[in-house]
Amino acid sequence: MLLFFFLVTLLGATTAQAGGFDYPVITNQIHLLRPKLGAGGSFIDGVSCLSWRFGVETNNIIDWKTVPEECEDYVGNYMLGDQYRNDSQVVTREAFRYAKSLNLTNDGKNVWVFDIDETTLSNLPYYAKHGFGAEPYNETSYDEWVAEEKAPALPESLKLYKKLRSFGIKIVFLTGRKENTRTATENNLKSVGYQTWEQLILKPSEYSGTSVEYKSGERKKLEEEGGYRIVGNMGDQWSDLLGTNPGIRTFKLPDPMYYIS
Amino acid sequence: MLLFFFLVTLLGATTAQAGGFDYPVITNQIHLLRPKLGAGGSFIDGVSCLSWRFGVETNNIIDWKTVPEECEDYVGNYMLGDQYRNDSQVVTREAFRYAKSLNLTNDGKNVWVFDIDETTLSNLPYYAKHGFGAEPYNETSYDEWVAEEKAPALPESLKLYKKLRSFGIKIVFLTGRKENTRTATENNLKSVGYQTWEQLILKPSEYSGTSVEYKSGERKKLEEEGGYRIVGNMGDQWSDLLGTNPGIRTFKLPDPMYYIS
Repeated sequence: MLLFFFLVTLLGATTAQAGGFDYPVITNQIHLLRPKLGAGGSFIDGVSCLSWRFGVETNNIIDWKTVPEECEDYVGNYMLGDQYRNDSQVVTREAFRYAKSLNLTNDGKNVWVFDIDETTLSNLPYYAKHGFGAEPYNETSYDEWVAEEKAPALPESLKLYKKLRSFGIKIVFLTGRKENTRTATENNLKSVGYQTWEQLILKPSEYSGTSVEYKSGERKKLEEEGGYRIVGNMGDQWSDLLGTNPGIRTFKLPDPMYYIS
Repeated sequence: MLLFFFLVTLLGATTAQAGGFDYPVITNQIHLLRPKLGAGGSFIDGVSCLSWRFGVETNNIIDWKTVPEECEDYVGNYMLGDQYRNDSQVVTREAFRYAKSLNLTNDGKNVWVFDIDETTLSNLPYYAKHGFGAEPYNETSYDEWVAEEKAPALPESLKLYKKLRSFGIKIVFLTGRKENTRTATENNLKSVGYQTWEQLILKPSEYSGTSVEYKSGERKKLEEEGGYRIVGNMGDQWSDLLGTNPGIRTFKLPDPMYYIS
């Protein structure tokens, strides 16, 4: 609201000083820009969509089914704009600095756990056609998208992946994608630059627990049975990072499009 | 950057259509507005201060000593503006909804753990005079401020406190403030509306561990020795919410001014 106020003030002052006033043009332009304004743009139930995003990213707002309709434009503009890239970069840069600072025992047991969707691969081309999370999840159309093997890499994560490998850290992909998508997922990962990995863990088709339970269990197996050391763990959902055996440090990438418990 | 670009585009279009152009005036106004622009305003080391704040609030950026100098204006404008209030409101509103939904056993053992600084009491009057976290922490001047007993309540938390009490949930304050500030802290809490509580736990002067260790240990005692049920836990630092016995649900309030591990 503050920002919107300043924008209007600034516009008013400028046109006045320029000796003219073209109200309909300004109003129309402000209307077009509204979704891009963040805090000043869209409101839902008394709070700005920027605050809603803060609530989501900090795990305060949980168990939500879809992006609030009023925030669809806000989320779309965020996801397609510089801010999403910039926010992602902050996270992967911190991860890089952390990984670089580690004094690792070179026993081949250091692993980094990456989630896949919205972490290593981006489904933005799909979600851009489906309301950026404002439409209810449709398993059929989503599965079709996965089968196309066309998800681009998240550029920041791909860069981090390469750096981690250069440090001798092995990569484990731990995803909620189901076992029957293994070939498509492997093809997609490889085609965008994730050439190799230690393990690719997909969810058994019959698994019925939460993502936190599933991922905790798999990480526990990695550490207790596999003898691995999870030095880092990165995902876009808090359910990637909470629970047991989370890893020495965890990193939360932005994702205001959906929530997985 | 995106926002700044649109602002400039909009201004250009408007002045052109209004038939005039007053570059120095616009430049000066944009300069004055810069700190208020968030994503478009201040940059540090290649990322916007809004992204830095995202990194801090999501616990990706840890162990930092001071707000980056380049982000002092951004953080100041955030803290004094609507966005901080709005972000806080999102958190306490979710907490209220959660607490209201609970089907509690009425045995007097349900407690809500509140941190104090930047959670129930606000030290914004102090930090506004000390660079909003951009100045290094000064224990002497901070202790003087605490002794004045003049910290206002965070309005959103005070409202929540009253609602929780009306639900029969008891209040436990668990703070990093030291035992020797007990009287000042009690006076301050009472004078701004926190009339009563089940326990006020202050840190022993000689304690040398981290905040996570201290707070985990105290919450463990509450549950295991006191027989309490921590139904909710709210703080502005992740160290209030991580570790053992975190509570059934945790709530993270915004605080881009300082970091406590």
